[in-house]
Amino acid sequence: MKKRFVIIGGDAAGMSAASKARREDPDLEIIVLEKSSWSSYGACGLPYYIKGDIKDLQDLVAISPEKFREERNINLRLQHKVIKIEPNSKKVIATTDNGDMEFDYDKLLISTGARAIKPNIVGIDTPGIFTLRDMDSGRNIKEYLQENSPESVLIVGGGYIGMEMAEAFHANGLKVHLVELLPHVLDSFGAEIATVVENHLKDYVQIHLGKYVSKIIETSLGKLSVKIKDKKQEDYEEHIATDMVLLATGIAPEVSLAKEAGISLGETGAIAVDEYGQTNIPDIYAAGDCAEAKHTVTGKPVYIPLALTANRNGRAIGSTIGGKITPLATINGTAVVKVFQLEVATTGIINVESAKKNGFNPVKTTIDSHSRAGYCPRSKPIKISLVADKESKKLLGASMVGEEGVVKRIDIISTAISGKFSVEQFENLDLAYAPPFSPVWDPVLTAARVLNGKLNK
Amino acid sequence: MKKRFVIIGGDAAGMSAASKARREDPDLEIIVLEKSSWSSYGACGLPYYIKGDIKDLQDLVAISPEKFREERNINLRLQHKVIKIEPNSKKVIATTDNGDMEFDYDKLLISTGARAIKPNIVGIDTPGIFTLRDMDSGRNIKEYLQENSPESVLIVGGGYIGMEMAEAFHANGLKVHLVELLPHVLDSFGAEIATVVENHLKDYVQIHLGKYVSKIIETSLGKLSVKIKDKKQEDYEEHIATDMVLLATGIAPEVSLAKEAGISLGETGAIAVDEYGQTNIPDIYAAGDCAEAKHTVTGKPVYIPLALTANRNGRAIGSTIGGKITPLATINGTAVVKVFQLEVATTGIINVESAKKNGFNPVKTTIDSHSRAGYCPRSKPIKISLVADKESKKLLGASMVGEEGVVKRIDIISTAISGKFSVEQFENLDLAYAPPFSPVWDPVLTAARVLNGKLNK
Repeated sequence: MKKRFVIIGGDAAGMSAASKARREDPDLEIIVLEKSSWSSYGACGLPYYIKGDIKDLQDLVAISPEKFREERNINLRLQHKVIKIEPNSKKVIATTDNGDMEFDYDKLLISTGARAIKPNIVGIDTPGIFTLRDMDSGRNIKEYLQENSPESVLIVGGGYIGMEMAEAFHANGLKVHLVELLPHVLDSFGAEIATVVENHLKDYVQIHLGKYVSKIIETSLGKLSVKIKDKKQEDYEEHIATDMVLLATGIAPEVSLAKEAGISLGETGAIAVDEYGQTNIPDIYAAGDCAEAKHTVTGKPVYIPLALTANRNGRAIGSTIGGKITPLATINGTAVVKVFQLEVATTGIINVESAKKNGFNPVKTTIDSHSRAGYCPRSKPIKISLVADKESKKLLGASMVGEEGVVKRIDIISTAISGKFSVEQFENLDLAYAPPFSPVWDPVLTAARVLNGKLNK
Repeated sequence: MKKRFVIIGGDAAGMSAASKARREDPDLEIIVLEKSSWSSYGACGLPYYIKGDIKDLQDLVAISPEKFREERNINLRLQHKVIKIEPNSKKVIATTDNGDMEFDYDKLLISTGARAIKPNIVGIDTPGIFTLRDMDSGRNIKEYLQENSPESVLIVGGGYIGMEMAEAFHANGLKVHLVELLPHVLDSFGAEIATVVENHLKDYVQIHLGKYVSKIIETSLGKLSVKIKDKKQEDYEEHIATDMVLLATGIAPEVSLAKEAGISLGETGAIAVDEYGQTNIPDIYAAGDCAEAKHTVTGKPVYIPLALTANRNGRAIGSTIGGKITPLATINGTAVVKVFQLEVATTGIINVESAKKNGFNPVKTTIDSHSRAGYCPRSKPIKISLVADKESKKLLGASMVGEEGVVKRIDIISTAISGKFSVEQFENLDLAYAPPFSPVWDPVLTAARVLNGKLNK
């Protein structure tokens, strides 16, 4: 009898696993159970669909369901919502349009993703309040814009989605308010970098830092009033009138199925996995935005749900299940976000407190440089924060902001972190130079030089 | 008595050494003898000065002579052309406007740079034929353009300078011919990458590959006729009428002073140095475009004269002479050149023959990808060649071409080469992803994945 590999969730991790398992084992039976009508889609593209850069929601679909079924012989079943995992009898139960169905498995992958966190706000279910997570939620926002022509929006949360959606709404002509509980937008990038982002953002968006939303009420049809409170100042209260609200306060791993089945969660709340992506229950794996991953710098499990990790770990598990044992890669938490004209990026451990908690003695420096040779007329400022450990002298993390040349520069540092480079070793890297592309001493080298000076003081 | 550090040549290597030696040792006497009227200038910017992007030649001067003299206490002497080094008596002799002068030294740095190679062409000294190397040669070309309004130019050589100057001349409205002896422009980048460059270049320039110039004659005032021959086809002959000619057939290290003084040259013809930049004669150092450097991949001395190497090795020698012993960094030969709308970059050993000569068993792959997520409307093609060693599985080199996102991507690979990464380790890097900046699997990761497949076949 053929072995059967069942996958719960047909997005990045799930379809990467299915495709790779198929390549490794042409005889494996592969069934993917996806609750929505979409599979293998680039959710990261949704802000740009809403902005108008991408015309059709279908364009975000990387590979069509037909292609998976016909070319890769993957039994992809949309609108199959798994409601139970039974590890003892090795089967899962899914609700479908034709009633509940059971699927036996030899190997199971849980790639249920994450859901948008709904903060504790009075009136959270008032019409006109949105989250952005999956394709349907993206379409909802787009349709609301097209059908109701709102003139203003209030975004709760200054993380990646908050930043990208601020740009998307602004491009649609809306007045944008942004409310963030922490002292800074993109707070995890560090105050120096975040301040540059805020100064840029102010040209487009009204920002409310250290504030939170306590209540939303509908004042008339399609009109909302949002009550803003201050985190520290108890008597502060402001009411902002807006036509719509976007909740962008983060995501939480979708682990309810796993939990009910007795699968262990890690301290982060996401599914704990071993170095091959296997959970505490044999033959059950987890990958993507529902699972933990191991951090390159600390070696500890973390929950940093990002697209590349989902794709890569899904692929590794698919490979293992297909017969070619493949360990998961560690992650550096490398990320980038576009904020209007700015590129903002981070990798590794940039937060000094969190570095200390992980046993490091962090030294941080922040420098200003330029994207091109100083005499080039189109040269743009770049600001870099770089953190290293005083004892080992090794790089721990970086964050960076600028109008150009930021994204792949953070990748240089991420590569060095993966290579366990000392700051001195990094300072000696031979990087490409030509006047239209960088100063002779690339900004990342300048940052390393300054940091190395600090380390050896 | 104060120790005296004498430096021959006041550009990148020389002034970096002077500045760093001063920082390390406030008491050192530092004398720089520079034959021209310029010091510390960015010669790499000359094509952009001629193009018109940079308005004033002075803008290319990084730090003014006054600043070196007053703020850094460096005795910078322009128009002091050293004509002899006397190692036994530890002195150098320079010609100046006030006659010859002698300078004793305790430590000496030779940073005499390189000169443009003049190929063996009949009529090479005809007016209207130029080279581009130093500030004066850049000004000569600019003035010729302004005063004579030539309508056409023939460039001999399809290397970096040839590429950059093709763009500069085209921007000035000239019809451009480009003659290259090798089968491709940027031949060292590999045929796959070079072909993309040529297809792009054809929109702006008439290219003559596998051809060379045998003779140039002046047909009338300011009018030249250039005789082109074919490398393989002996009876081929073409005559191209042009208003000016640029010789861009490479540079050779300026080593005559060193040679006469008994300083050893390496096999490359440049000055041989040890790991601290010292020549075979004690207390005499060499750095910059006149000296060899050690290659990261092969560990052997090479002559790859580039700006960052000159700055960095000058700085290291300055540090050592200032009292803080600092070894030279190795180099990967990382380089980038802008060719009209294209970015073209390379690092490490990309040439399969030269990899074999160095004892490797090279495996090469070339892939096509995109600069951004596939569904992003402004995504541009990127082509990457990646080479690794079949035995050790380690990365050896890469070259890359595309309209955006190439420069800092080559630096990711350069960093990995410095870290002695295997292709598999590279494939597992955690790189930044957001739709406006890259596909989920960055092109460099895709290249590594394909190459890894080939390595393990």
